[in-house]
Amino acid sequence: MHLEEKTTDSKPVFSGKVVDLRVDTVELEDGSSATREVISHPGGACVVPLDDNGDIIMVKQFRYPFGTQLIEVPAGKLNYGEDPYETALRELKEETGAVCDKVTDLGVCYPTVAYDTEKIHMYLCEGLHFEDRHLDEDEFLDVIRMPFEKAVEMVMNNEIPDAKSQIAILKSMVIINGRTD
Amino acid sequence: MHLEEKTTDSKPVFSGKVVDLRVDTVELEDGSSATREVISHPGGACVVPLDDNGDIIMVKQFRYPFGTQLIEVPAGKLNYGEDPYETALRELKEETGAVCDKVTDLGVCYPTVAYDTEKIHMYLCEGLHFEDRHLDEDEFLDVIRMPFEKAVEMVMNNEIPDAKSQIAILKSMVIINGRTD
Repeated sequence: MHLEEKTTDSKPVFSGKVVDLRVDTVELEDGSSATREVISHPGGACVVPLDDNGDIIMVKQFRYPFGTQLIEVPAGKLNYGEDPYETALRELKEETGAVCDKVTDLGVCYPTVAYDTEKIHMYLCEGLHFEDRHLDEDEFLDVIRMPFEKAVEMVMNNEIPDAKSQIAILKSMVIINGRTD
Repeated sequence: MHLEEKTTDSKPVFSGKVVDLRVDTVELEDGSSATREVISHPGGACVVPLDDNGDIIMVKQFRYPFGTQLIEVPAGKLNYGEDPYETALRELKEETGAVCDKVTDLGVCYPTVAYDTEKIHMYLCEGLHFEDRHLDEDEFLDVIRMPFEKAVEMVMNNEIPDAKSQIAILKSMVIINGRTD
């Protein structure tokens, strides 16, 4: 059983609104045992919304763990059982008012592989039309628009430290640069 | 206080080897209150090790939250008070046996902005020399070497879902492509 771990015990510690936490005991490949702290999270979806002028639509909001405002691509948590594609389009509409004609799958990322089950699905959304936005009751955020190239620059310069935004913007850049039409 | 949240209460829930968890109560900008589940983590550092032939050195290990092996760039947790640059070089040496002549700062990413304080510092390491590797006692991993372009392809194709690896590899690609020497 090279590069495997076998669960021998599992203790639930906390069950919250956003995360659950458990501490498992595992058997390692040399027969010794170790503990694994595991955060469970339903996962999320995010969107790079790109309009016909080549502008990206992003959101600025307060991020409590860092005590500061961050600029990110629109994103949200999956409802249990929800298709991540539906989550992505729902959050895009709720946070920015945009609906879109064309969606490109940017794949998935695992933000914290060592101790958290969260997966984030990413999409590039083009052909935007704007309707009303409908934020959740306890959601406060500002919508920000900038040239896509400026967002790439901000990722490279560390002005957009959010991981999902960095990945989704850089993958979009690779896809857009590779288009021949 | 637009886009701010004020802590009004904080309850520690769990203190572990890898993460701590607390549940805070905050006052939102409309005066209403909400709870915030916050994971604390010391942060980490990761490395894109690139040898003189243009190969990247990565590691394959079992990732318990996903119950599977993942291919990632070498990385590790910061010891408290440790400079992330030192962590990066230490983990590179421990996991792959490599030391390097040239380091380029790739900035920092926040993997899970909504509920986790973790920050990961990223570096591109070139001019590699190989010595002995010294894994931690409970650490099991395989070293993998492939052309850097293959790793970029695997990021784009979703075969490397780890977020820090996706960012560090794509940022390295942008930097390497932009070099004029």
